[in-house]
Order: sequence, then C-alpha cells, then structure tokens
Amino acid sequence: MPAPTVNVSVTPRGSMEILSQREVRNLSEVGSGSTYQLFRQCALAILNTGARVDDARSILEAYADFEVEIRQLDRGVRLDLRNAPADAFVDGHMISSVREMLFSALRDIVYTESELHNNRADLSTSSGITDYVFHLLRNARTLTPGVEPKMVVCWGGHSINEEEYKYSKRVGHELGLRNLNICTGCGPGVMKGPMKGATIAHAKQRVLDARYLGLTEPGIIAAEAPNPIVNELVILPDIEKRLEAFIRVGHGIIIFPGGAGTAEEFLYLLGILLHPDNAELPFPLILTGPRSSANYIQQLHEFVGATLGEQAQTRYEIIIEDPVRVARRMKQGLAEVEHFRRERNDAFHFNWLLRVEQDFQLPFDPTHENMAALELRRDTPPHLLAANLRRAFSGIVAGNVKEHGIRLIEEYGPYELRGDAQIMQPLGALLQAFVDQQRMKIPNGEAYRPCYRVVS
Amino acid sequence: MPAPTVNVSVTPRGSMEILSQREVRNLSEVGSGSTYQLFRQCALAILNTGARVDDARSILEAYADFEVEIRQLDRGVRLDLRNAPADAFVDGHMISSVREMLFSALRDIVYTESELHNNRADLSTSSGITDYVFHLLRNARTLTPGVEPKMVVCWGGHSINEEEYKYSKRVGHELGLRNLNICTGCGPGVMKGPMKGATIAHAKQRVLDARYLGLTEPGIIAAEAPNPIVNELVILPDIEKRLEAFIRVGHGIIIFPGGAGTAEEFLYLLGILLHPDNAELPFPLILTGPRSSANYIQQLHEFVGATLGEQAQTRYEIIIEDPVRVARRMKQGLAEVEHFRRERNDAFHFNWLLRVEQDFQLPFDPTHENMAALELRRDTPPHLLAANLRRAFSGIVAGNVKEHGIRLIEEYGPYELRGDAQIMQPLGALLQAFVDQQRMKIPNGEAYRPCYRVVS
Amino acid sequence: MPAPTVNVSVTPRGSMEILSQREVRNLSEVGSGSTYQLFRQCALAILNTGARVDDARSILEAYADFEVEIRQLDRGVRLDLRNAPADAFVDGHMISSVREMLFSALRDIVYTESELHNNRADLSTSSGITDYVFHLLRNARTLTPGVEPKMVVCWGGHSINEEEYKYSKRVGHELGLRNLNICTGCGPGVMKGPMKGATIAHAKQRVLDARYLGLTEPGIIAAEAPNPIVNELVILPDIEKRLEAFIRVGHGIIIFPGGAGTAEEFLYLLGILLHPDNAELPFPLILTGPRSSANYIQQLHEFVGATLGEQAQTRYEIIIEDPVRVARRMKQGLAEVEHFRRERNDAFHFNWLLRVEQDFQLPFDPTHENMAALELRRDTPPHLLAANLRRAFSGIVAGNVKEHGIRLIEEYGPYELRGDAQIMQPLGALLQAFVDQQRMKIPNGEAYRPCYRVVS
Amino acid sequence: MPAPTVNVSVTPRGSMEILSQREVRNLSEVGSGSTYQLFRQCALAILNTGARVDDARSILEAYADFEVEIRQLDRGVRLDLRNAPADAFVDGHMISSVREMLFSALRDIVYTESELHNNRADLSTSSGITDYVFHLLRNARTLTPGVEPKMVVCWGGHSINEEEYKYSKRVGHELGLRNLNICTGCGPGVMKGPMKGATIAHAKQRVLDARYLGLTEPGIIAAEAPNPIVNELVILPDIEKRLEAFIRVGHGIIIFPGGAGTAEEFLYLLGILLHPDNAELPFPLILTGPRSSANYIQQLHEFVGATLGEQAQTRYEIIIEDPVRVARRMKQGLAEVEHFRRERNDAFHFNWLLRVEQDFQLPFDPTHENMAALELRRDTPPHLLAANLRRAFSGIVAGNVKEHGIRLIEEYGPYELRGDAQIMQPLGALLQAFVDQQRMKIPNGEAYRPCYRVVS
Repeated sequence: MPAPTVNVSVTPRGSMEILSQREVRNLSEVGSGSTYQLFRQCALAILNTGARVDDARSILEAYADFEVEIRQLDRGVRLDLRNAPADAFVDGHMISSVREMLFSALRDIVYTESELHNNRADLSTSSGITDYVFHLLRNARTLTPGVEPKMVVCWGGHSINEEEYKYSKRVGHELGLRNLNICTGCGPGVMKGPMKGATIAHAKQRVLDARYLGLTEPGIIAAEAPNPIVNELVILPDIEKRLEAFIRVGHGIIIFPGGAGTAEEFLYLLGILLHPDNAELPFPLILTGPRSSANYIQQLHEFVGATLGEQAQTRYEIIIEDPVRVARRMKQGLAEVEHFRRERNDAFHFNWLLRVEQDFQLPFDPTHENMAALELRRDTPPHLLAANLRRAFSGIVAGNVKEHGIRLIEEYGPYELRGDAQIMQPLGALLQAFVDQQRMKIPNGEAYRPCYRVVS
Repeated sequence: MPAPTVNVSVTPRGSMEILSQREVRNLSEVGSGSTYQLFRQCALAILNTGARVDDARSILEAYADFEVEIRQLDRGVRLDLRNAPADAFVDGHMISSVREMLFSALRDIVYTESELHNNRADLSTSSGITDYVFHLLRNARTLTPGVEPKMVVCWGGHSINEEEYKYSKRVGHELGLRNLNICTGCGPGVMKGPMKGATIAHAKQRVLDARYLGLTEPGIIAAEAPNPIVNELVILPDIEKRLEAFIRVGHGIIIFPGGAGTAEEFLYLLGILLHPDNAELPFPLILTGPRSSANYIQQLHEFVGATLGEQAQTRYEIIIEDPVRVARRMKQGLAEVEHFRRERNDAFHFNWLLRVEQDFQLPFDPTHENMAALELRRDTPPHLLAANLRRAFSGIVAGNVKEHGIRLIEEYGPYELRGDAQIMQPLGALLQAFVDQQRMKIPNGEAYRPCYRVVS
Repeated sequence: MPAPTVNVSVTPRGSMEILSQREVRNLSEVGSGSTYQLFRQCALAILNTGARVDDARSILEAYADFEVEIRQLDRGVRLDLRNAPADAFVDGHMISSVREMLFSALRDIVYTESELHNNRADLSTSSGITDYVFHLLRNARTLTPGVEPKMVVCWGGHSINEEEYKYSKRVGHELGLRNLNICTGCGPGVMKGPMKGATIAHAKQRVLDARYLGLTEPGIIAAEAPNPIVNELVILPDIEKRLEAFIRVGHGIIIFPGGAGTAEEFLYLLGILLHPDNAELPFPLILTGPRSSANYIQQLHEFVGATLGEQAQTRYEIIIEDPVRVARRMKQGLAEVEHFRRERNDAFHFNWLLRVEQDFQLPFDPTHENMAALELRRDTPPHLLAANLRRAFSGIVAGNVKEHGIRLIEEYGPYELRGDAQIMQPLGALLQAFVDQQRMKIPNGEAYRPCYRVVS
Repeated sequence: MPAPTVNVSVTPRGSMEILSQREVRNLSEVGSGSTYQLFRQCALAILNTGARVDDARSILEAYADFEVEIRQLDRGVRLDLRNAPADAFVDGHMISSVREMLFSALRDIVYTESELHNNRADLSTSSGITDYVFHLLRNARTLTPGVEPKMVVCWGGHSINEEEYKYSKRVGHELGLRNLNICTGCGPGVMKGPMKGATIAHAKQRVLDARYLGLTEPGIIAAEAPNPIVNELVILPDIEKRLEAFIRVGHGIIIFPGGAGTAEEFLYLLGILLHPDNAELPFPLILTGPRSSANYIQQLHEFVGATLGEQAQTRYEIIIEDPVRVARRMKQGLAEVEHFRRERNDAFHFNWLLRVEQDFQLPFDPTHENMAALELRRDTPPHLLAANLRRAFSGIVAGNVKEHGIRLIEEYGPYELRGDAQIMQPLGALLQAFVDQQRMKIPNGEAYRPCYRVVS
C-alpha cells in the first residue's frame, strides 16, 4: 500500500518573508538546478520527522514521486509540494516545526548556495572559513547577543545502548534544571536524549525560551531526520564547517559514549585546545557515562594519554554515573567562560578568540592514498597529531557508513593506517574495543568487517 | 537512612506579591490554626512532585518533621520551610514549578479560608455556590477572557492499564496538534497521559502558551501529587466544587476508561446535561478507549441506556481506537460551543449558561443511612436519577479508598443500595464488571472485597 | 447649535472583563441608585477629555441629556451611552484612552461602592484606612511589584502662570530623560506640565512602559478632566484618601508653585514626615520653581521655619531655576529610598513603613465652628500643628472654590482662624502673598474677596 | 564660550551587535577613509538633535574638534567620540534615540559603502536600482512583513508658515487617531508637524508600536537634524533613491504646501503614476492645506492640468481645511491598496508592482547644459514630461540652496529653461507664485534672486 501523501503550498514565517524579487528568482533557479536533488532529499527527511521510519533509503523509496518546487511570488517565496508524506500534516495544515525546518533547509541549502558561496566567502584562509561559518550561523538567526554563556554541546553515538541513552537523558535533565540549553547533531541517541531530558526540566523550571539547537550537514540529515524537539536547525555544508560551528557557538561540551564518529569529534576538539594559542582559554569539557560505560571511557582516556600525552588529559574531566555533578561542573565551567569573555570583551554568541588552524578546517577526502599518508608519529606536536588522528577516524566513519567511502573499500580493500608503534598500538586497541562493544555501525546485523588495517 | 532535607525560605511571584499587611497577617494566623495541617500536607505532597514515591502515607512518614511557617514581611508573605524534601531543589534553589504550586496551595487553602469563605460566599443557594466556584477560579487567575473555547477536560482512571495509558497519550497528542489545552484532575493515569501527549504535540506546533490545568481537592492532592506538567493548579475545597469547576471552565470533555470515580464523573455530567434547561446547550462529550477497552465502554453505554434512557445516550459519542477522530470531533464540537456563546453573548471563560441544580452541588455524605436512602427508581426523572446514581458511585469511591469511608465500612459492613430491579440489575452488573476488570482500587494486592451490596 | 453627540455601547478590556454575574448585577443596581449621578458626572468629564472646554458647569449644561446605563450580559458588563459627546469618538469608535478612563471610573466609583465599602473596609482605625487605600490602588492595578522606586509625584497649582508652566515641563523633561515616572492630580497646570515634558523625554529614551498616573477624586474630576497623557487613572473617594495615596505610591515629591491647595499638600506631607516614627525614613522632597518664583518659594520656606521650626526645614530641599539639578537630586533620593526599603524588606510599590496618624486621615469638614476651633499654637508638637495648618488651608480651598464651602461663606461670612501671634502673623502674611500673586482662584475676573479672617 | 562637550564610547544595540570580525574591520577601514567626513558630519548632526540650533554650518563650527572613531572589538563595533555635544547625553549616558540614530548612520553610510555598494548592487538597470533600494531598507529593518498598509508619507515644505504647520499637526493627529503611521523626510516643518500630531493621537489610542519613519540623505541630514520623534531613520545615498524609497514603502501620500522641493516630489510621483503600466494601481494621493493655502493648491492643480493634462488631475484629490476628511479618505484609499495587493499576492511592505522607469531613478546633475536640454514640450508623453519637469524643479532647488548649485549659478548666471509656450507659461507663473508667497528659500532675509530664467 503506498504511503498516504498530500499536495500543498506553504509560505515561510520569519526571516525568509522579506526577500527581494531577485533573491526569490535566484532561489528558484538554483533550486531547480544541481542543488535541487540535495534540497529535495533534505525536505523529504524533514517531512518524515514525525514518522517512525529512520532509514533514509526506505523513505526515499516510499516517496519516490515526491516533488518540491520553489515558486516566486511578488510577495516572496512559496514551496509547492507534491506527494508529500501525510504525517507532516494535521487536518491539512503542516505542523509548525516541520514548516520551520523546511524553510531552514531552503535557507541553508539553496540560499547559502546562491548568496553566500558565490559572492562572498573566502575559503582559502583560516579566518575566511571562520567568517563563512559565522555568516551561515548569523543568517540562520542562531547568534543572539547579550545572552550569558549557556549553550552546552552534547556529543556521542547515535546508536548507543539503552542504559547509555537513559543516562544521557538524566544528564540533559540536570542541565535543563540549571537553565542550560542543548546543542547536538540532531539525530537519535545522544543527539536526542539530552534534549528530551532538558525539555522536561525546562518545563519544570518554567523556562519558555529554551533552545534546542541542531547542527547537521546534508549527508546526515537525509539519513537521520532531526528529532522534533529541535527548535533551531542549521544545515552546515560539510563535516568540518559543522565541527567548527559546534565549538564556536557551544560554550562547553559533554562527550557521551559513542563510536568512531565520537572519537573524531573528541580528537578534533583536543587538537584545537592543545594549540599553544588556546592554552589559557577556558573550555569546559567533560567525558561522562553510566557506570557500565566506565571501561569505555577509561580506555579513551588512556588512548589520549598514550598518544597526545598527559597535558591533553588535563583539558577534560571524567565523571562516571553522576549527572548532578556533570551539570554542576559544567555550570562552573560556563561561569569561567563568561568571566573570560567579559574580561577580553569577546562576544558571548561566537567564540572568536579560539584559534582554529586550517588543518582542522579543510575538508579531508578519505582516499586510500590520503589515509595511508597520514603522519601518525610520536614526534609530531600533539595538536597536529590530533588533527591526523581525527582524519583517521573520519576516514573510518566514511568507510563504515558513507556511500562514497563504502564504494572505495569495496574496490580497494581496507584503508591502511601506518605510524609509530607507540601510536598505532593503542589506536588498534581502541578500534578493536569499539568493534567488541558493537560501537561500529553494522547496517544489517552481520558481523562487523573492519574497513581499516592498523600497521605499525 | 533518612531522606535528605533542606531548610529554606521562599517568596512568591505573581498575584501573591501584592498583599496588604492585613492579608498577610490573616494568612499567618489562619495558617497556624486549624487549616495548618491541611496546608502542610498539601505542601509536602507538592514538594514531592519530583520524586518517585506516590504513596501519601509513606511521604508523610518520611518527612514527619517537615514544617512550613507563613511569615509576614512588610514586603509581603514568605514561607519558611524546615526539613523539606531535597528533591524539590536544584543547588539550593526551589524548582520553579514547585514554587508556583506551593503558592497555589497557599492561595487556595489559606487565602480562600481567610478571605472568601468568611466574608462573602453564600453557599445556601445554587447561584451562590456557582459564584463561589467562579471566585475561586478567578482568584487563581484561571479565567482568561477573549480566548476561544479550547479547554478539553480529560476524565478517567488513575490506575488504568498500560494500553489505556498509552492510548490516552495518543489522544492528548492529537488534541495538542490541534492547539487544544488539557484539563485533568492532575494525578497519574488519565490525569497525566493526555497532558504528556499534548506537551510533545504543543512543542511540535510551537505553541508556547499551552495550558495544563489541574483541578484537585485537598484530600486527593495529598495522596496524588500533581504531575510536573501541570502549569496551573487549583485546589477546590471539595469534590462537588471541583466537579462544577470542571464543567464550567471545560469546553468539552473526553472520558477514558476508569472505575467508580470515572462513573461518578460521567453520571454527574449526564445528569446536568439531561436537565431540560440544558437541552439546547452544546457540550461535546466523547467516550473513548483503545480496542481492548471496547467492551468496557459498551457496558457503560448500555448501563446509561438501561437506567437513564436513550435520550441520555444521545448526549455523547463513542469512538473506539481512533485518536485522530476523537480530536477532530472535539474540535468540531468546540466550534459549536464558540458559535453558541457568541450568539448568546456568554463568556468563553466560564459556562454561565449551564444550569446546575443544588442536587449536584451540595456535598453528599456517604453514611450508610444516606446510601440506603438514595432513590434509584425508574420513575425518577432521568436528571434526578443521575444525581442519585452519581451519589451511589461517590459513596463507593469513599468506601473503597477514603479514610472516613473505609472506617464506616469496617464498622457497619457494606453499604446497601436499593431500588427498582430495572436499575439495580444493570448497576450490579456494571459494578461487577469493574471488579472483574480490576478497576476497583486494590491497595495491597489482595482480592477486592466489595464495600456495597446491591439489593433489588 | 447643540453639541454633536452619539449613542453607543462599549465593553471593557482588562480586569473588568472577568466579573461574576453577581458583581455585574451589583454594578447595575448601585449604578442606577444614588451613586448614579456621581458616575454620570465623572463619565461626562472623561468623555470631554479631548475637548477644549474646561468648565465643568458648561459641560454639564451642554450635555444635559447625556445618559449612561450599566448593562448586565452573561459575558460581563456593558455601558450604553446616549447623547455622548462626539469628540470622544473617531469614526464611531471610542478613543482607547477615553474608554480606559471610563471603565476606571466605573471601577472606582461603582465597584468600590458595591464591593469594598460595604463589606470590608474598616475606616475606624488608622491601619484600616491605610488598608482601604491599598485595596483601592491594588484593585486599580496601580501596584506593580518588583519595579525599583521611580514614581515622582508633582504637586502645584492648576492655574499657574506661563513661566511656571513651562518650567514644570522642563523639570518633567529632565525626570523623563532619567526614566522616572510622573504622578499628579491629573488636571491642567502642574498636573499636566511635568507629564508633557516627560512624554517627550520618554520618547527620546525609547521608554515604552512609562507611567503617567493620575490620582483624583470625584469632586475634582468632574471639574477638571484628566489630561489625555494620563495612562492610569484612579479616583479616590475623598481628599484625605487621595493625599494618602500620593504619599504611599509616590517615592519622592516635587512641589511647584501653587496656591492654598498646594500649601495644604505641603503641610500634609511635612506633618507626616515630622512624626517621630518617620524621622529615619528617607523621603525626597524638593521645592522648585523658575527664577521668577524664587520669592514665593522663599516665603513658603520662611513660613515653615516660623511655624514648624528649623527641623521641618531640613526635610526638603529648595532648588531655583535648575531642572537638571532637581532631577539629579530626585534620582539620588530615590536611590536612598530603594536602599532603605531593601534593607527593611519593605515593598517598593507601597510605602508601608510610613506612619500616618488619624489626624491626617479623617476627613475634615470645614464648618465655621471647626475652622475656629483649630489649635494653631506654638506649643503644639510640630506634626500636630502641621495637621491643623493643613486643615486651615483645606478650609480656605473649600471656601474659595467648592460649592459647599462657598455657600457657607455666603451665609456666615469669612472663617475666623485664631491662634498664637507667632503662628497667625506668618500665616496671614503668606495668605496675603497668595492673594497679591493671584494664586487664589478668581472665578470671574473680579478682585479676590478673602473667605477667611486671621485673628491673632 | 565653547559649547560643552564630552568624550565617550558607545556600543550598538540591535542588528549591529552581531558583526563578524571582517565586517568590523571593514567598517573601521572605510570609516577612516574617504567616507569618514560624511559619517562625521551626519553623526554631528544627529548628536545635535536635542539642541536648538538648526544651522548646519554653525554646528560644524561650534564642534570643529569633534571626532568619531570606529573601533573593532572581538565583541563587535564601538564608537569612540571625542568632543561630542553634551546635549546628547544625560548624566554621562547617551540618549537612547540619539544612540539609535548614530548607529543608523553608521549602518547606512559606512556599512552600505563597504558591503552593498562594492559587491552586489547593479545600478545599471531599473530593477537593479529598485533591488538596491530594497536592500538598503531591509538592512535598516524598515520592512516588516504581514502588517496591513498604514504607512502614510507626508510631503511638503520645511519652512512653511505657522498656519500651515499647525494644519499639518492637525492632519497628523487625525491620521494617528486612525492608527496610521507617518513617514517624512525628517526635518522641520511638514517633516515634523504630522509626526507631532500623530504622537499625541497614538498616545490617546494607546498605540505602542507606532512608527515615525524618517527617510533622508547625507546632504540633508547634516543640515536638518532628524526631529527626536523619528524612531526609524534611514539615510539613502541620494535624492533619487530616497524618492523611490518613499513610494515603495509608503502606502499613500499627502502633499502639504511647500516650495520647489515639494513640486519636485509631486511631479516625480505624478510621472510614475501616469505610466500606462501603473494605470490600474491604486495609490492614494491627497493635496491638502488650510483655508489660507487654498490658492496655492489651486495654482498647483491648474499647473498640472495645463502641462500634464486632465488625466493627471484624476490621480489625486484636493481637500481644503478638513483634516478629518483627509484622514478618512486616506483610510479608504489604504483599504483599496490592501485589497489590491492581497489579490495580486504582492507584499505589503514594499510596492513591487509599481513600475518606476530609469528616467526617474538615475541621478540628475543640474548643470546649465543639462537644464537647458530638458525637453519641456507639449507632445512629450505626460509621464516623460513629468520626469523632465521634476528635473527642472530639482535643478532649481540645487540652484537655490545646495552648495554645488549655488556655485554654478554664481559662475554662469541663472539656468535657462526652454520649451513650448503652453508649458513654459504656467511654469513661469507657478515659480513666480512661489517667489511671491516666499516659498523659495531665502537664506538671510534678502529678496529672492531667481536662479532660473523661463524662456518660451
């Protein structure tokens, strides 16, 4: 039986209401060209927010004849949808949050393409890339000046176990009770748990302006629809821009258990914090999980010690099975951030003072050649070693789940990762632990076949 | 190990901020006299909102040395709490919703006592009682003029089965998607499910001013703490005032499966709607439940037909396993209510036009004598028969669970209910069905021993 | 040509929207009885706010057939107006501020009569009277908690000269630039100038919630319609309640030039501040005027010195021709008030700590007997002497302009005021100065004939 | 005695709070280059808003050592002022409206220069210019979607007589009573009168979100500081952009008496409305003035008839001495505008459907050659003839008062205007009437010496 669908036209509320005729024309031109497929795919994912199905492919198949047309009116822009999933509507009216996210996608994918990219972004320098990220976030109305630091980023796996999920909810609850906001990658698992916990806590504390910020990228949103708690959605163009967005708008970060992706995020941040210019900059960073995940966290901690050294271990705190303590320590850390920025007259809404080098900004293409060329040596300065380890994990994520990466592995076999034994040994052990703990994505229940070989 | 407690002072926000010195003095005088125990008990229940324990008695025992003192300041009123449950606090600050409810209790119990009751209420006439209910609700800021009818009352059992609970959440979700508010008796079960479902739906629809209105009475709140979703709490003085409050502020009512208490509510409303003066008045009333509860609903329906007649059956609609249809029909019914009140220039915030006779307003004392004297005869006009059947169920609820009723049963044995066979036979069958379906409260897992005998 | 009139029905917004049926019935009963004439007169004055005519009598004559009926609807209250002045309407719609003030009058005259007076007020004790004033102000929504002290009362004549009027505007402008609110007696002259100046300053400072509070009484509002800048209007029942309202809600007071009425207000306040219990209480009080009024102020100052003594002179500050300094000193004084109340936990919205004795609260009836009996002796404690001097001026105001007083003078000749020479000599001189400076009201341009004789 | 000055730093509120580091750097670079003098001059004019002096030159001289520096902070932008006029401050704090306007100037002059002009504006096409005007207005947050048409533009002279000024206030009062907003060129005279009248009316109607929009250009703001009622200020780059801004954001226009500048505006609008594409487009246009100005208006009317023909006369309505009728007719006209735009789905906030040809958009340089070359012939299509007449008046304004024009006249003598007698005769008569009625600016009281010669 085909899924029920509707045909409908929707107009935006908010910033997209005031477009010039030229801007609308650009939107409809870009939206019908090469960017169209991307936008259509994101729109479809968003329209499925309310549904139970998580699998991108099955959604795309179920609504193969879905179409979205960007129409130009004197008054502004309008989206004409055909064969749209009926779940996104109530008695013929599109659910408000779905409509919001739909126009967020239009804004971030089509508008970005037509406006920002063509004319203004300078992606050849570090400060140009940072500026680009800033403009994307400002255009999405994500930057609100004058609010004290309280945006807490939660990183961790999307397919964690039930105990870890419940723990992430409890932590979110304690954060919410302290009037803190939540920012995640807006999928399931750790992307959802803390938001859910915080929602209830915010209701208890009568917080009406709570923010649930979801930062995603086109490749991920299509597969993992944002959960409906997200009330601000920004689609960054790629993984590196998204990572930079996290650390520029987040005032503190909590890392929950996860797999290779979480390791990538952790190493990305450590690499940046280890840069000498950032040595004095306060950035609360907490690793936490339930009692049952203590071993996992300990292993990650030891891996950091073995590869990046003791100094790297001082940039974060480990807290096991204690949501109240996590929230209290985060709150204290945020107070330090506020103090620091006040003293230096830095904005609260964007972390301008954090130094991020191009190593962490330029997209990494995980070819076999690039993976094999990664310098994983003990004598590399820690923040550069962290950058390379980050790339290694990024490649493994691609080889595990991204279409392009999977095809490369099928053709050429596993990636080879080479380096000093002092690095490769703990790396191999950590990866094996991920496999043993079933933290590597297994699409269809088969045993995991590694997409990498660690050579030392 | 004793439960962790804190000593703290709290001041109100909102309407209780502007009290005269005389009012504050009255509060502290009344609050230290006979009303004190009642207020203390309610306060303790509210302070336990966040905790897991539902049992009133165990709460009272766990915090035997809890004290609350009403203090007079030039600036207003202050509550000094000693040995208060620590769960109500976050890092030393009382959770906002708990504080709100605490002052709701102060307002409704102590203030009511000192202000309204002594001087102004005329409880000897029907219109005087209605006026009293109006003042209680207005004083609680529950009446907001100019808002279109959208307050949906949900009645049903507090100890329903899992399937029924989930169904009530689904119905609440569909109501919330249509921007409707929820009013319940603010305990667990059906008092919570629809609110929970609506909360998520309101978030999806970006409804920021959703109302979750809890109407309770002192005897119940102590045993069943309001769930934390409730954002408006009113404590009416007794069951009859509370029932009248439901039907005066509610614009439509949905009845979910429940036990004797739910039957009491249903018969109360039917009795009023059957009054000839109310014949033309629109009042959407829907009986609904999951597929598995269809038999229960059918039996209730047949009981109404057998006792109150076919006309009574036309005042409600039955919908099985279809939350979307429930919400749509309610929405239509509310449109009729709005049309009707606009035409007659009646307020949206209080159903002045509904005729409620003293039979439904005067407290019923379920002594054996009163129970035996209830006229349950076929030739009684339906709306008076409904009033008596309502009293019968009210007595059974008391005999089952209320302290005073239980003692009466222990002393004198089961109540005797007498009347025409055409009434008594279906009544007996309905009660037996409640027993068989475990809808009679069983405090400690033993088999239910009826507190009544049906004699025909 | 008769003045153009309209017939129209109006309904309230705000607090009068939620009345019980009983309350509305009471309103219409009271409003059609003895209180009706009073309400009708006030309503007519308010409906003439927009017009140029200031003379109460000519208004009453011009709209002799004006009628206002209080109608009861299920929904609430409605006013049916017949032959109402057309100036209060724009294209058939009543001007918003006129509607607001009309329902303020209904609230304060009719509602007060029916609710507060009958049942609850205890006017036999000092604290009872204060409580009554509090309830009147709270019922008018005048008391907003949590706002820092910034309500500045401006007292002074209603028929001052052009230079004094412009000066009062300049002072209001400087107060408004410092985000202070204005409270006056809401007629012309000093009642209007500071509000006008503040309006422009508030616009410059983008203050959107500025308050222009007018406190009046039935006898005055009928003659002197509130100026349209007033956005909160309260009608107190008599002059003593109104004076108490000024000093309980005002955080500081500025006295501009005026006549006998202004002297009455000044002595009232001095008498209270001289009470030993109020010795420590900060209450910013400034006498100010343009250069050309310096002599007047000096004379008033010397009168205080001669009668109440040097200590009385320390309770106020004199500033000549310096609006900026007036505003800065007031701002400093308000900071002290805030500090004082914070320390003592007193409300910002009502000056509970100020001791006001019955001498200042009980209405004074200016018969010849009462006037002659006033004790104006050097050995009276200053605060009691001030009370009696206040009464003397109150009587002179009545003898000058109030209907009842004028009739008494016509019948019995001038009042006789007796007392010690040290009091009577300066009193006589001050009164003569008022006459010479044309500060005594002269209704029709004739030379002023004193309504008093000073006998020492 | 030198004027009192202060040194102070100010930071923005609102849209300029969230700038990227690059944007701030651009601001400070541009702001210190060639644009600096322009910005400094505007800033100085704005800082003098509160003062009495109107003469640009004397202001510039009085504050010759005034400096403003644009400073880059991590947090955003800051202005450091040295030797700024003390009148713009209250106890050391800059008056809010002054601060707002200061940052409006920064936004429109410096930001425009650095952002919009360099990269994006296409000023070579008609739609490109319109788009540019749109972006300037949107960047200034002037375009608010979803508000029904109610922005009334008031055009007329800045040095009108007292009677005309009072009349413009009365019209503004009636517009304000009907909840309409006012847009003017934000100087004195007709730029101020209607705003002043509307302010009082809006207060009476409790309109809190009234808009007083001032559209100006750099050359004018320096001479004529915006009156402090203006709560939105936009500085357009030149006279033609400013005229287009008026007719794109205004929903209707009222023309009061004025001189050559007003005639320029009137002919500009008529020329556009006479374009065949705009024939069906509703655009309420009213000529009005007090009784004493009836002759002036009649003469203007006849001039239009004689030059542009009867059809042109049908595009406006003449109302003499009747502010109520002006406001009612405008209100009706706005209802038609709303209906028209709803039908065509056009935006309310920008009049996209109005066709404006390049003839009206391209800046006109009033050299003697250009003036002499203007085709003022009877056989020119009316809308093009109007364009040329508009240019003729624009040139006369320049020759009268603008520095560049005055110098040209001094050097080469009066402009020569040539054309058909049917055009030139009425033109000469109209200009002479302006002279006779003293509507030509006479800087220093001498007799007016025409800067033009009409040759037919």
